[in-house]
Order: sequence, then structure tokens, then C-alpha cells
Amino acid sequence: MKVAKEKLKKLGEKVLDDIESGKNPSIDIPLRTLSNVVYDPKTCSLTLGKKSAKRFLFNIAHAKKFTQTTMVAAFCNQLLKEGLHTSLRDMFYALKRTFPNSDENTFEEENQSNSVLVDLEVTLNTLREQLNLAADVRGKMVGRILIKDRGDTINCSRMGSGGWGIPSVVEDIQFKKIDANFILVVEKNALYERLNEDKFWQKYKAILITVQGQAARGARRLIQRLSLEQKLPVYVVTDANSWGWYIYSVIKYGSISLAHVSDRLGTPTAKFLGMTISDIERFGLQNFTERATEVDIKRAQEMLKYEWFKHPAWQKELKLLIQKKIKAEIEALSGRGLRFVTETYLPTKIENQEFLP
Amino acid sequence: MKVAKEKLKKLGEKVLDDIESGKNPSIDIPLRTLSNVVYDPKTCSLTLGKKSAKRFLFNIAHAKKFTQTTMVAAFCNQLLKEGLHTSLRDMFYALKRTFPNSDENTFEEENQSNSVLVDLEVTLNTLREQLNLAADVRGKMVGRILIKDRGDTINCSRMGSGGWGIPSVVEDIQFKKIDANFILVVEKNALYERLNEDKFWQKYKAILITVQGQAARGARRLIQRLSLEQKLPVYVVTDANSWGWYIYSVIKYGSISLAHVSDRLGTPTAKFLGMTISDIERFGLQNFTERATEVDIKRAQEMLKYEWFKHPAWQKELKLLIQKKIKAEIEALSGRGLRFVTETYLPTKIENQEFLP
Repeated sequence: MKVAKEKLKKLGEKVLDDIESGKNPSIDIPLRTLSNVVYDPKTCSLTLGKKSAKRFLFNIAHAKKFTQTTMVAAFCNQLLKEGLHTSLRDMFYALKRTFPNSDENTFEEENQSNSVLVDLEVTLNTLREQLNLAADVRGKMVGRILIKDRGDTINCSRMGSGGWGIPSVVEDIQFKKIDANFILVVEKNALYERLNEDKFWQKYKAILITVQGQAARGARRLIQRLSLEQKLPVYVVTDANSWGWYIYSVIKYGSISLAHVSDRLGTPTAKFLGMTISDIERFGLQNFTERATEVDIKRAQEMLKYEWFKHPAWQKELKLLIQKKIKAEIEALSGRGLRFVTETYLPTKIENQEFLP
Repeated sequence: MKVAKEKLKKLGEKVLDDIESGKNPSIDIPLRTLSNVVYDPKTCSLTLGKKSAKRFLFNIAHAKKFTQTTMVAAFCNQLLKEGLHTSLRDMFYALKRTFPNSDENTFEEENQSNSVLVDLEVTLNTLREQLNLAADVRGKMVGRILIKDRGDTINCSRMGSGGWGIPSVVEDIQFKKIDANFILVVEKNALYERLNEDKFWQKYKAILITVQGQAARGARRLIQRLSLEQKLPVYVVTDANSWGWYIYSVIKYGSISLAHVSDRLGTPTAKFLGMTISDIERFGLQNFTERATEVDIKRAQEMLKYEWFKHPAWQKELKLLIQKKIKAEIEALSGRGLRFVTETYLPTKIENQEFLP
């Protein structure tokens, strides 16, 4: 958090300098348009390019946005000073007011303050979580890990049928003791509950995380920290369809809309364990597939073109989906028996190290 | 779980009896249409009326549904016997196959097996959770409670910034030690995180639960069990709009679509703590409201007519929303400062026992 504070201070000093030297105060903000999003194969992540734009105080088109930017910066500074965390929506209400002697409001809609906050994240090269602002929350963790958070020691191997609900901000969590060989990230809660009931993580020495759909920022950051700081391999399990695979790619490479924070949310070492279209034949799931819809196929066609899906193994799976017009959910494995996933499918693939990149 | 097993056995025996005595085998299934949903002011819950329909094996229109019903019943029986839990979708795949010597599948779509399962719940007067089938999962708990689940002792006052992720099936959870005066249920995760950071539950001796939107069945059942078994009062906090209030009513009375299980999911003693439209003026939030949309107003008009919103206090709030065309989110309280909700709003209302029924 100290770094973020330092960066905010510098931003404030820069604006102050402009004023004191009689210049038109300005802030330099990197562009977040698709044209400025670059896939970097070396770091395996989506990043922002070098384009940026200046935001001035004395410019009719910029004045309000400039003021909003400094308001949001001051608010974050206050949060860090008081050690308080809050949500984007709370920030909007805390900053919403009418400018004195005018009919003009500081912010009309929440998306205005949200967008300014993202500008600030990019400008400061920081995460909103490091500015004490919380994002969406989803995801649970269970397994052979002991963490410390806000003074509490939490033993994730003693969570019963539930799990430790991953908070939105995981910056200050300490990993006290880990006795695991890998992290298994599953898209769906149903699989999480199955694996947890079968104590899969106990038998195979693992940490089990469900992201419950598209991974929230808290879960992504936690996976990254576990991978980076603990050097643990990360295996991801999703449905065998375009959407599941994209969920995997966001965990690994980052997303287009959050390309500016891929380096702090992505886990480039993550590997895809399943499910693939090839798995359907291999594991005898032909009776449990579904017909791919036109939307599924269109999405797969788009993904064929993404730089980060160019590996032949992925091209093959995407093309199989398109040609055979099929897809399968992870629950399809239950067609072979409820414990097939824990007793056969996952152990086989992990043992043989059969991953997609 | 024993009771559910007993009920399944009886159902099987009844069908067997029909066969052995040469009768057309049938199952009696209560109707789940709106015309058979009744609001019972005595028990404060939505329940099913007395209408039912017979489903026969030897009847062209019924044969498949009858077979599906017995298949689902047999599957649940298997789950209970093996002590396995699974999801509705897994059940679908586990049961999906082609009838021998035909082109006919047992189930084509998941909603077919889901619907048959609800029939079974109603017929057996049981919960799907008691048949070991998991529903959606959402919600977290933190606070002055120690629980035991699958052999693990879980101290919910030591969850750091997270919480104990409430699983889909909470039937077997034991409450080992509780040192709380009430349960505070909040709609939104952002408020949960604020209250958790301020250790509200510590200071006011409470158990804090976020349902994260419309409450999932696991969370509803947990709230009910805490209320019934521990005789703890339940206070609910939502946004000041039709949707938030309806979320409250589902926790308290049950929902129309799940009227058959209100008695096992609803918490009739729950009270509404806030937010109301009246709160806006009282707590000086006029600058932080939003304009109610036509959809909001239409929903409020529908709710005006619901039996379970007939109390004058609710009629007043619904009419205020419609007349003033305003609504407010719980985050609007941040307009008065980030800690206003923990330090002023909630304590004031709880101390003065200012609840809506």
C-alpha cells in the first residue's frame, strides 16, 4: 500500500508544480482502447501499448474530467490514510455532490467515477485493490494451506463442506504454511463441492479454488500470488466450450478490458487441464455432449484469431468444436459415474501431465 | 436424511403395491401453479394449496414423465445410500441415456430432470438438499459462531477479511457455540465487507451473513436454522427499492416458485431493518437517491397487491417509492461518510428497534 500512497503523492505534486509554475495543470493518461492492447508472447499476457493522452484543467472538453480525476485521487489518498476499504459504488456516493454556485454535479452516474478510477489505475500503474477499492467478489478456497489475514489464522483444510470465501482485496493476506503440490482452479461450484466432498485436495496434496464463472479480481490476484510467491503450478478445469476456455485464458493472460493490469492479475504459468473436445471421445462421453449453438461457434471462430489461442493444440480444439458442432459441460463426466471425475479423469490427466498451454 | 430415505422407500413401495395388485401404477403430485399458491398469514409464509394430479405409468401422456419420476427417485435413493452429494446438472448427465430399442432419450434437457425433481420434492414433502442434491451457491458468514461440519470445527470469528462460504447443503451443520444477540443479513457484499472491516459483529455481538443478491437456498436454510434452533432474531438490510424489499420477503415468507418449501426455507420471524424510502429524508440522503425507473415502479405496484406486503408500513413505503419516483442503494449512506452505516445508521435503528414487519 505504501507504493500506491507514494504514487498518489507524486501525482498531486506534479499537478501542484504545474499550478505554481503557471502552466495549465495536466495529467498524462494511457489509452485503454483496443488499438492500444498488445499481446506479449514473452510474458504471456495482454498489456497496454504506449499511446496516451493528456487531460488538462483549462480546456472546456477536459475540465470536468480533470476535476473528477483529482477528486478520485484525493478520495483514494484518504482511504489509504485511514486504512479503510470500500467499494466503487460507495466511492460514487461519497463523491457525488453539486459544484458550488452551479447546477452541475461532480458525478451523475457510477460509471463516470468507475471510469475515472480505471484511468487512475493505469496512470499510476497500480491496482484498485492497492487503492483500497473493492471489486466484485466470487470464489472460495479450500485445501492444504494456512493463511493469516487481519490477525486471524485461517486453516483452509478445516472448512467442512464450505470454503474460505475469497474477499475482494487479497493484498495483505499472508501464506503461513502450505503443504501442497499444485493449485486446482475449477470454473464451477458443483465440481468444487464434489472434489471437496471426496477430499480430493487431501489425497492429491492440493489447494482447491472455485472461481464460480468468470474469475473475480480477488480470486485472480490470489491465484497469481500463490503461483508467483509459492512457485506452485496452477491447473485450470472448465467446461469444454468457448466460454470455459475463455475463462481459462483470462486467468492466464488477462482480459482485453483489464489489459492494463494483466501483470498483476494474470498467471502466465497456468495450464489447462480440461475439459477439451478431444476428451469426449477419449473418455467415452459421446452421449453426454450438447449441440454447440451458433453463438458458441461464432465465439470459437473469434478465438481462433486471438494471438493467445494460436498454439496448435488450441487451434485443434477450437476447430473440433466448430466442425463437430459439439460442446460438453464438466458435469458430463457424471455420465460415467459421479466419482469418475475424482477417481479417473483428473488423476489420469494430472499423472500424465496432459495439459494444454 | 433418514426421513427422506424413509419417504423414498414408501413411494417405491406404493408403486410396487400398485403393480402387484394389478393396478395402473401412479404417483400423486401436488400442483405447483400460481392458482395453487396460498399466502398463510398465520405462519407468515407462502404455501401450496391442496390441488394435486395423478401421474400414471399406463397413460400415453404420462408414461415418460412417470418413468422419469421413478428414475430421479431411484437416483436420489442411491445418493442417500452412498452418502454422496451432487448437483442438478450432474444428475441430468448421470440419468441421460437412450431407452433400449428406441430413439427416445430418458431426458433431453436439464430442465426436464429439474422439473421432475421439484415434483418429487413436493410429493415427498422434502427438500432437494435432504435428497443430497445441491442448488446454487452464494453467500458468506462471519461472526460470533462456532460450527461443526464434516468433522471440522469452524470458528467464524476468525475469517480475516473473507468469510465462511456457505455451501449449498447445510443440513448437517452443527451449531457448537454461539455468543450473539442477533443475525444481521445484508443483501450486498460491499456492506458485508464494510461491516466486517469495522468488526461490527464483534462490537454488537452478532452473526453477519451476506446473501449476495437473491438468497440462495443454502443461505436461506442456514438463516432459518439459526433463527429456529437458536431463537436468534434476524434483521435484514437491503437497498431501498422494490428488488431489495422482495429479497427480504423471500427470506421471510418464501417465493412463489418455491412455495412448496417455504416452511423449510423461510424465516417468518425475520424483520426488515432498512433501507426504506422514509430513511432518505430522516438520514439526510436526499442528494444520494436515484430516480426510480418505470420497471421499478411497475414492480412496486405489483407488490402493493401481494398479501404479504399489505401491512400499512409496507404500503406506505411502496407508495412513497411510486409517488416520489425515487429509490436508494444502501451505498447511498456513504454520502454521509464511509462509516456512517456502522456508527450511526445501523446502531440507531437496532437500538430503537425500528423494524418493518
